Amino acid sequence: MSNYMITGTSKGLGLCLVKELLKRPDSSVGLIFATTRSAPTPALQKTIDESSGRVVNIIFNPVDIESVKAALPAVENHHGGAGLDVLINNVGWGPFANGIKEMDNLAEVFNVNVMSVQNVSTVFLPLLEKGKLKKVVNITTTVSSFAYQDLFARLPAPAYKVTKAALNMLTLQWGMEYRDKGFTIFGVSPGWLKTDLGGEGANLEPEQGAEATMKVIDMAGKEEIGRMVNIRLEGFEDGPGDRYQGGVVPW
Amino acid sequence: MSNYMITGTSKGLGLCLVKELLKRPDSSVGLIFATTRSAPTPALQKTIDESSGRVVNIIFNPVDIESVKAALPAVENHHGGAGLDVLINNVGWGPFANGIKEMDNLAEVFNVNVMSVQNVSTVFLPLLEKGKLKKVVNITTTVSSFAYQDLFARLPAPAYKVTKAALNMLTLQWGMEYRDKGFTIFGVSPGWLKTDLGGEGANLEPEQGAEATMKVIDMAGKEEIGRMVNIRLEGFEDGPGDRYQGGVVPW
Repeated sequence: MSNYMITGTSKGLGLCLVKELLKRPDSSVGLIFATTRSAPTPALQKTIDESSGRVVNIIFNPVDIESVKAALPAVENHHGGAGLDVLINNVGWGPFANGIKEMDNLAEVFNVNVMSVQNVSTVFLPLLEKGKLKKVVNITTTVSSFAYQDLFARLPAPAYKVTKAALNMLTLQWGMEYRDKGFTIFGVSPGWLKTDLGGEGANLEPEQGAEATMKVIDMAGKEEIGRMVNIRLEGFEDGPGDRYQGGVVPW
Repeated sequence: MSNYMITGTSKGLGLCLVKELLKRPDSSVGLIFATTRSAPTPALQKTIDESSGRVVNIIFNPVDIESVKAALPAVENHHGGAGLDVLINNVGWGPFANGIKEMDNLAEVFNVNVMSVQNVSTVFLPLLEKGKLKKVVNITTTVSSFAYQDLFARLPAPAYKVTKAALNMLTLQWGMEYRDKGFTIFGVSPGWLKTDLGGEGANLEPEQGAEATMKVIDMAGKEEIGRMVNIRLEGFEDGPGDRYQGGVVPW
């Protein structure tokens, strides 16, 4: 039985990851700590209400380390000493800009996409050390691959690309340093999803992305440490970029 | 005759880049705008005093866009309508941390290494559009190459690695967007230098790094747009990482 923590669960991929985990028997998935910045959305509240106590809402602002620290006791009090097995750093933001010089929110996007991961990973590390699986999963995107920039040249989301590239390097630093301590820390690109972030033009439902992301998380081992791993979806295997053939994405 | 602007010229590589440019005749190098956060250091002041008016100190805080904007008129008033030809974003910071979870200054390092480049490039873009060469050079480091992380695993500078990787992606975004407007925007890794940033254990004098960096800047063309380019130094060509064989560094 494994305990999970997922950040950014008010909506979108985060909420779907919670629901995906709830499909599993409680012999496999124990508690799911679903973190939000403020009171749960109706959609998350409904999921909590129907979870027989398995989903526990934890409120903190992940870009504010003091806020994250203040939430630690609430999680400790719930997990009965078993710790956390899997942390999924899912919080993310991908605003558009009309051009690189019009990008006026890079520092704020960095806080959301990178500082949140550093803060949450650092604060909850002691609970992950008590857990068995010791997996930290940082949700990233193939859009942040240097190798794919020509493919994504027309996507006007420079702050997303820059900060997720930074996140990928942060993931690699964590992965390398904690490899010998039994941790598997890596990134997953969950696909282009019909969420507020991905927009209506996306090619996957968030439920598809969540299911495929959980498969990657289940399977990930030493080979994936530090890497950005793509989801795998049948019928979407061809070509690079926003196709989903699984495996490690080139930097 | 080309006009240059270099940020972070109080000491280290930035100061050496100013001195390197001063070696050239004024038929080649016109004005050198040497920017600092506060009044010039004695070393920079001496260089200014001996420059026959070619080195002009400009004071702004590059992490504060309003401060950068306030400095624009001072540069405009000096360049006589010729604009800027080359901007070298040299400001940088590479603090150590005992481990990834001990890294408690990532946001500040991001501001220095990435926001400064975004701010200065954006504000001075109109002057670069008036210039002939239209080169923007962002000083980066092979330490931020994903491909080289195993080589640099023991360098305890995670914030440096993460933020310079972000800078590399920012450079690529600028490079791609401004390619068709006649700009050559790229990164240079100036080598491991005996500066406050590089430390005494470094293998090059800052003057060597400055000379080699200027050679890269002189030679750079369309092939280098968006890339991280290594310096080339005879006797230091072997192997990857902190060797200097020139060429594009793998991401």
